Amino acid sequence: MYQDFVLKGAICYSKTKDTLRFLEQGFLVCIAGKSAGVFPDLPDRYRHLPVADYTGKLIIPGLVDLHIHASQFTLRSLGMDLELLDWLTTWVFPEETKYQDAAYSLKTYTSLVEDLKRGPNTRACLFATVHVPGTLLLMDLLEASGLVCMVGKVNMDRNCPDGLREKDAETSATATREWLEQCGSYRNTAPILTPRFIPSCTDDLMRRLAAIRRQYRLPLQSHLSENQREINWVRELCPQSACYGDAYARFGMFGDEAPVIMAHCVWSEDREVELLAKQKVYVAHCPQSNTNISSGAAPVRRYLEAGIPVGLGSDVAGGAHTSIFRAMTDAIQVSKLRRILTGHNDAPLSLEEAFYLGTKGGGAFFGAAGSFEAGYEFDALVIDDGDLAPPFTLSPRNRLERIVYLSDDRHISAKYVRGVSIF
Amino acid sequence: MYQDFVLKGAICYSKTKDTLRFLEQGFLVCIAGKSAGVFPDLPDRYRHLPVADYTGKLIIPGLVDLHIHASQFTLRSLGMDLELLDWLTTWVFPEETKYQDAAYSLKTYTSLVEDLKRGPNTRACLFATVHVPGTLLLMDLLEASGLVCMVGKVNMDRNCPDGLREKDAETSATATREWLEQCGSYRNTAPILTPRFIPSCTDDLMRRLAAIRRQYRLPLQSHLSENQREINWVRELCPQSACYGDAYARFGMFGDEAPVIMAHCVWSEDREVELLAKQKVYVAHCPQSNTNISSGAAPVRRYLEAGIPVGLGSDVAGGAHTSIFRAMTDAIQVSKLRRILTGHNDAPLSLEEAFYLGTKGGGAFFGAAGSFEAGYEFDALVIDDGDLAPPFTLSPRNRLERIVYLSDDRHISAKYVRGVSIF
Repeated sequence: MYQDFVLKGAICYSKTKDTLRFLEQGFLVCIAGKSAGVFPDLPDRYRHLPVADYTGKLIIPGLVDLHIHASQFTLRSLGMDLELLDWLTTWVFPEETKYQDAAYSLKTYTSLVEDLKRGPNTRACLFATVHVPGTLLLMDLLEASGLVCMVGKVNMDRNCPDGLREKDAETSATATREWLEQCGSYRNTAPILTPRFIPSCTDDLMRRLAAIRRQYRLPLQSHLSENQREINWVRELCPQSACYGDAYARFGMFGDEAPVIMAHCVWSEDREVELLAKQKVYVAHCPQSNTNISSGAAPVRRYLEAGIPVGLGSDVAGGAHTSIFRAMTDAIQVSKLRRILTGHNDAPLSLEEAFYLGTKGGGAFFGAAGSFEAGYEFDALVIDDGDLAPPFTLSPRNRLERIVYLSDDRHISAKYVRGVSIF
Repeated sequence: MYQDFVLKGAICYSKTKDTLRFLEQGFLVCIAGKSAGVFPDLPDRYRHLPVADYTGKLIIPGLVDLHIHASQFTLRSLGMDLELLDWLTTWVFPEETKYQDAAYSLKTYTSLVEDLKRGPNTRACLFATVHVPGTLLLMDLLEASGLVCMVGKVNMDRNCPDGLREKDAETSATATREWLEQCGSYRNTAPILTPRFIPSCTDDLMRRLAAIRRQYRLPLQSHLSENQREINWVRELCPQSACYGDAYARFGMFGDEAPVIMAHCVWSEDREVELLAKQKVYVAHCPQSNTNISSGAAPVRRYLEAGIPVGLGSDVAGGAHTSIFRAMTDAIQVSKLRRILTGHNDAPLSLEEAFYLGTKGGGAFFGAAGSFEAGYEFDALVIDDGDLAPPFTLSPRNRLERIVYLSDDRHISAKYVRGVSIF
């Protein structure tokens, strides 16, 4: 099934969040879909393998998007004068209602998947909509693309328009079981439980989803502490919870059984930060979305220091750009403005940290992904940055810095996911 | 010399900073390099003219970059962990020193001009370096591109490395006169006086430049109140000045004779804001640069309310992106973060305002440019946004919003400057 091979070129990947490893000329070996390591000289035991020679180009791990709404791809950049709750009501919910239509789903999900395939991301965690057929269609399209994805049928049984809201908790839970039973035996695509956020899910629904989660040992994705109006609303809906995160934790949906991603965490209070750290919940940091819909700027430095696992999210369509290179740039920029404008003394994110978050940091949610150390799944991008090169020699770090800020899909010469070329 | 013609398609341009005019289908008439107006139906008097049919595409004014360092194009995205003064010392001054070399100047300026030609900007105010031959070369290349540009030979006679610093005020002033005398009789390219900033120019040099400015009635560009360490330094250098802006004003370089652009104005104090307003000095707002090198977030809303003329600047290479579409997006985003993070109540910039700043706002520095009203110089972009279109009809405003956030040079089908197609 697997073809083993070697990539030759300049190589760069994260070792830790503060450390990049660079080889100006090296060999990256792929055995059975995994990295067998990076070598300055090709070891004898691999000399029989075919070598793809990318001398002059830069080979880096594929990028990981921990938070994207597939059904909002059509909404990129629209309605950016609104804040979260008004934007959901005005733009998102009416749009998501359309995904009960198979033809509409096919058309828009196909556009999204083509965009993702062309771009630098190799893995993503996606929200679909409440609709089971549409969610399965999205999974089929993603599976055909070769990307590695977790996809969630969304659960919502309150506080959204009639055309979108699931009739009641039982209906939503039953649809979720049907979806899970119908999921194909995919190679690269897996289901992830997706209660939209506390305001969309009754306690009854949360209890039923918790049971499903235990039964299937499902990972979970949702939203947390994005916007102050949202947080106040959750406080009203769940007066017994110590904090927004605790509203998930009460149902065993904050860590425990299987890994959890919470998107945003812009305004997490102290006890929520402690809970995130204790339960090793992943924070999907979505800097552009948090800016566009005026949510705020998440204290990423604090989360990293607390040992909370963090990755990056495009959060299309709060964010307009699917590329996680853009999310890296945004994360650095927002961290600088946060420091200057709030007077906090948190050091801004470094290039090393932003690159780590968008590769190995988010990749950890998928197991061993987002790096080239031996044993990591083989996701790789070959970047031809020739037209970005100045007439002097860039250090490898500066070369990477320029690719992060300035490259686009035209610079991607080759893209491998789990050892398979997907171009 | 001029060929008169008509463009047909969807048309959008700014009337005021708060008002866009849209025609879903209209005719834009070019007579003698100027707009003769926009019409829903083509008037009889223009029916003999050739019509370029761009039905389905969007026609907008060319974008205007009020602040870019041509010699820093090679430095885009590099050294973004530093703040202004350290970044200048570490990256900028050593790079600018190289422009005493003709071959280096030719190579790098050619790359820049090709980039500008491909992109959405039609006009720019550029800093070259202190070197006269390099500055003239840049002007020749820009003239050949068809873009409309003002270009400055930079003046610096203190506080920079020996290889870059001009020997003394007299040497700098003499070189400036030589440059002005050697400027070709360009159609689209003009000189602009460019004392780098107060820390680079002795009082003696400023007095000599003021005399040159009066003699040639030259516009002027410089930097103002970008970074707090810089401002403190100016306070030490000019203890007699009431504020940084006053340090220019004392030499008659803050308005008066001919128009002035001051880049940044991130931290202008009250009396400086009054002076900007009184003297009608243009502020070049450079949101990405101000973020990247951690300068801050300029209070653009305040400047607009004070009646100060404002445009956008890429500030390459404090900014990494030459496109003024990106500057529009950055300006909106930074204004949102500024509001949330500082607790100021300034409303964020709207799409209308950001588009105005990047077209008509900056265009006013060139006279009547950046709009399609009758009499404006005919700079136009034809945008093919077909691959950005969702499967529902976008309002014209949302269509523009998407182009601002998501288009790149691949979406530009045609580009006209002063009535001439430059593709």
